[in-house]
Amino acid sequence: LDSVLVNIGNHFDLKASVFQAPRRGIYSFSFHVVKVYNRQTIQVNLMQNDYPVISAFAGDQDVTREAASNGVLLMVEREDRVYLKLERGTLMGGWKYSTFSGFLVFPL
Amino acid sequence: LDSVLVNIGNHFDLKASVFQAPRRGIYSFSFHVVKVYNRQTIQVNLMQNDYPVISAFAGDQDVTREAASNGVLLMVEREDRVYLKLERGTLMGGWKYSTFSGFLVFPL
Amino acid sequence: LDSVLVNIGNHFDLKASVFQAPRRGIYSFSFHVVKVYNRQTIQVNLMQNDYPVISAFAGDQDVTREAASNGVLLMVEREDRVYLKLERGTLMGGWKYSTFSGFLVFPL
Repeated sequence: LDSVLVNIGNHFDLKASVFQAPRRGIYSFSFHVVKVYNRQTIQVNLMQNDYPVISAFAGDQDVTREAASNGVLLMVEREDRVYLKLERGTLMGGWKYSTFSGFLVFPL
Repeated sequence: LDSVLVNIGNHFDLKASVFQAPRRGIYSFSFHVVKVYNRQTIQVNLMQNDYPVISAFAGDQDVTREAASNGVLLMVEREDRVYLKLERGTLMGGWKYSTFSGFLVFPL
Repeated sequence: LDSVLVNIGNHFDLKASVFQAPRRGIYSFSFHVVKVYNRQTIQVNLMQNDYPVISAFAGDQDVTREAASNGVLLMVEREDRVYLKLERGTLMGGWKYSTFSGFLVFPL
């Protein structure tokens, strides 16, 4: 991520792009990872504490920009770490145009 | 859906994959339905009480995995049923990698 | 947008398709813009007060319907205007099947 648009509470670590939950609850996460000029297939996993929760794919050969998108509601414990992992392929242009959002839907 | 990650309040019926609203309000729904090794075009509808609200499409011929994604805010009455319907095409690999999320944004 | 499914508080201007924030806070916005029978590449920007915040692309040549999707959390001041802008390409079929959603995640 090149820029963080919103980081209320400072629970998102810019350097590692890891969200660390400030408290237990249901969070909504969504991501759109854009590959640019790249004929590889990419697979992006949303990870919770090193376990993959959901995946998204972008595999088109002839497209200059294509997004691997997905979203989910997650039950998250305090201090759980949630982050994106590029499971397959490479992002030649870096994470430009990509987004990763998360917010607390309700506390538990 | 092969797994339900979050089902607080037990208002999501796993067997039928139908969300039944526990109370009146505005809900946010989003889905990402992935087709796998399938040259058909698929159309996925988000249904509210048997009426289609929004649609999403995935129709690429040369891609191993592609998602039909969309999302919406809906005004939902108590006991309304919200679910996904595959309007066109088939999901040869089942609903693997697909997600369907909904949560109450605010009650009315 | 041909129809507005939810417009609580009447802060969404149907004619201009502009959301005007009723109060300061963090809002979640997401959009899915569908191009129909169109070989052009489209780029859709989410604009906040005339500045682009995020972009999404759809550029497939051989697909009848494809969506440019993205979503983001935004810190929005009272009376900020948030809207979609078609930065590149044309939508030959209009905004049919496209969605644009926003809601207040929490007030500030």
